[in-house]
Amino acid sequence: MNIPRTSFPRIVIIGGGFAGVSLAKKLSKQEVQVVLLDKHNYHTFQPLLYQVSTGGLEPDSIAYPIRKILKDFPNFHFRLADVKQIDTENNSVDTNIGALKFDYLVVASGSKTNYFGNSEIEKHSMAMKTIPQSLNLRSLILENFEEALLTSDLNERNALMNFVIVGGGPTGVELAGALAEIKKGILPKDYPDLDTRLAQINIIQSSGCLLKGMSDKASAKAEDFLEKLGVHIWKNVRVTNYDGKNVITNTDLVFQSSTVVWAAGVKGAVIKGLDANNFVSRGSRLLVNNFNQVKGFKHIFAIGDVACMESEENPYGHPMMAQPAIQQGEQLGENILNLIEDKTMQPFVYKDKGSMATVGRNKAVVDMPKFKFQGVFAWFVWMFVHLFFLIGFRNRMVVFVNWVYNYIRFDREARLIIRPFKNKNKVDD
Amino acid sequence: MNIPRTSFPRIVIIGGGFAGVSLAKKLSKQEVQVVLLDKHNYHTFQPLLYQVSTGGLEPDSIAYPIRKILKDFPNFHFRLADVKQIDTENNSVDTNIGALKFDYLVVASGSKTNYFGNSEIEKHSMAMKTIPQSLNLRSLILENFEEALLTSDLNERNALMNFVIVGGGPTGVELAGALAEIKKGILPKDYPDLDTRLAQINIIQSSGCLLKGMSDKASAKAEDFLEKLGVHIWKNVRVTNYDGKNVITNTDLVFQSSTVVWAAGVKGAVIKGLDANNFVSRGSRLLVNNFNQVKGFKHIFAIGDVACMESEENPYGHPMMAQPAIQQGEQLGENILNLIEDKTMQPFVYKDKGSMATVGRNKAVVDMPKFKFQGVFAWFVWMFVHLFFLIGFRNRMVVFVNWVYNYIRFDREARLIIRPFKNKNKVDD
Repeated sequence: MNIPRTSFPRIVIIGGGFAGVSLAKKLSKQEVQVVLLDKHNYHTFQPLLYQVSTGGLEPDSIAYPIRKILKDFPNFHFRLADVKQIDTENNSVDTNIGALKFDYLVVASGSKTNYFGNSEIEKHSMAMKTIPQSLNLRSLILENFEEALLTSDLNERNALMNFVIVGGGPTGVELAGALAEIKKGILPKDYPDLDTRLAQINIIQSSGCLLKGMSDKASAKAEDFLEKLGVHIWKNVRVTNYDGKNVITNTDLVFQSSTVVWAAGVKGAVIKGLDANNFVSRGSRLLVNNFNQVKGFKHIFAIGDVACMESEENPYGHPMMAQPAIQQGEQLGENILNLIEDKTMQPFVYKDKGSMATVGRNKAVVDMPKFKFQGVFAWFVWMFVHLFFLIGFRNRMVVFVNWVYNYIRFDREARLIIRPFKNKNKVDD
Repeated sequence: MNIPRTSFPRIVIIGGGFAGVSLAKKLSKQEVQVVLLDKHNYHTFQPLLYQVSTGGLEPDSIAYPIRKILKDFPNFHFRLADVKQIDTENNSVDTNIGALKFDYLVVASGSKTNYFGNSEIEKHSMAMKTIPQSLNLRSLILENFEEALLTSDLNERNALMNFVIVGGGPTGVELAGALAEIKKGILPKDYPDLDTRLAQINIIQSSGCLLKGMSDKASAKAEDFLEKLGVHIWKNVRVTNYDGKNVITNTDLVFQSSTVVWAAGVKGAVIKGLDANNFVSRGSRLLVNNFNQVKGFKHIFAIGDVACMESEENPYGHPMMAQPAIQQGEQLGENILNLIEDKTMQPFVYKDKGSMATVGRNKAVVDMPKFKFQGVFAWFVWMFVHLFFLIGFRNRMVVFVNWVYNYIRFDREARLIIRPFKNKNKVDD
């Protein structure tokens, strides 16, 4: 890769998610050369992907060009590259566009969907971790409705209109709520020929409650909200297989469904070369110390979802969410500068700002360290926080326009099958 | 296709473009059953496709769900279907989802890119008639810049940054202007490592002027605007081939380019079954009389781009643009009702409301029947008219937000490679 060497130390960051971008911003205008590598030329605001899948937002409003985020920073380079391997002996990364030497390396490669080794589920179910995946799901949902109109086989029509969401975390809950609103507000108008009562939305959760990790109150209220919207919640049920038609569980329950969304877990997007010694099998993450240094290295770091920093409050690492990623990125920015200047590094301390999930209009649950609340106010807080963390003024405006419109009109206008998904190969990039 | 027959006559419309939608709206709430068939579940506002290709607008803001346009109309059915053939003996259309009988048939299938039989150009060049095509072009432009950064071969870098637009009609002129603005406003910021002077934008026009069909003043002014933006205009040059690397012309000129946009012509999207007797080879359109009846039929009509209605003012049919399509759709709505009620049909008379094209910020040309003007005011008129004809309040708001933002910030934020195009097969649907 033809990036000129300067007298500044070179810091290579793998990944332009929350962690990578917050670190890069912190390092801007410092006496370091920063090279950010990502498979995409845009940063994805993952918390709103479910709204893309359900036609509430256009994909472009939750994506932001990485080059633009960092355009004013000198000594900054971006390359569209897929990192294949880390070579710790030569301090170099191998990518699809060539090798690149580093002085400091930061792995911020995030997480990917965890199918727990079940390749059949991986093949047939839909994931929702990237924008193309979310657009595939949007197409599939709409294609299913169109196809349901055509079939005279009632079983088939049932399966086309039966949605199974595996996993009752924020993604599962938010997607289920949005689908329930589509069933209520849009299906009857768009498909007067279709018996929309057939549309069923199921959440399957392996444990005994939704939104594990949030308060009992939040969990119970989310369940209550979903039930009022007509969502079926199946707790203590584990999905064991899905062949594209039947969802098999560890109980007697079997679901016939054309649309299974796998939101049951994520794992660190570990890159070859580091995983041998430093791999934490729970969540497939890289073991790091308090300074986010990967075990055994002084100059190689991991931050965000891919990093597992064990602590008393979080014995299995921090939750794989935006907040720890952003905070680790910021802290590491200071620590790398400290390390370069031979100063003492500061250990990372996670400030839990709380967590939240939305179920639908006027329905959200918010757990803050000191307050927990649910309902309309929580919903406004949820929207405000998401607008605040979205990158870019234009994106905020467009999302705001959409939300106001969707709220007033009970509508979601991006119900467009722009790239059909069915009968195509799954392309997730 | 399982659409129940009612006592009302059934009118089948092929195509949900400007013509089909304006006809369907006219027929709503009348005592007829309307079945609209389209390959997409959305209406595309084609005049703004070039802004999608150049990152100025998100695709979802110029698309509108067809079901939603007609959701309040009783006796209306939409089916996502690709019509393969028209069977005039049995009054039926054959589609990928089955056959459908009709009492009246309206072909509003629009137009497609005309490569004039050159399959090599078709294979290697980019078209811009659909949203997926425009998104492919957006990806390709951005992928080219990323690749230009990587190569050390100057010839290759030149080709990656050399844009050739074939055709100097409104599409070619508008795209060239937008690319010139990207070169000036975005490239230097996004790609400081790249010598952006290498980015060249060429328009190749087979005749002696741009914007043929508009006034001489408009044509000259558009040329002037483009030249000020640094666009190279090659007049009286015809492209004879393009193999993916070299653009060959009927002169000594050869262009090395990785990106050739073919905007040199369109032709009617004729459907098998009618084309034998009623085909006009110039533009591949269906010959219709003053009532838009396809020659030889009383109950089969064609409207919009696919219809060729010869008249004194337009001996080769009306221009293949939105206005004749909308007006023919409206007029035919009345005429079909007249025909059903055995009343006299009214011949179609085209009201030319003028035409316009934009070159860039503060630069547009407008020809109205009584006034012709160019510059800033024309640009505002252009924007107002396009916002007005865009379907949907949300779309208008989102487009407006984008335009205001882009204008103030000299920016285009949708420069996202969401689905990479290079090294993939061309998928245009």
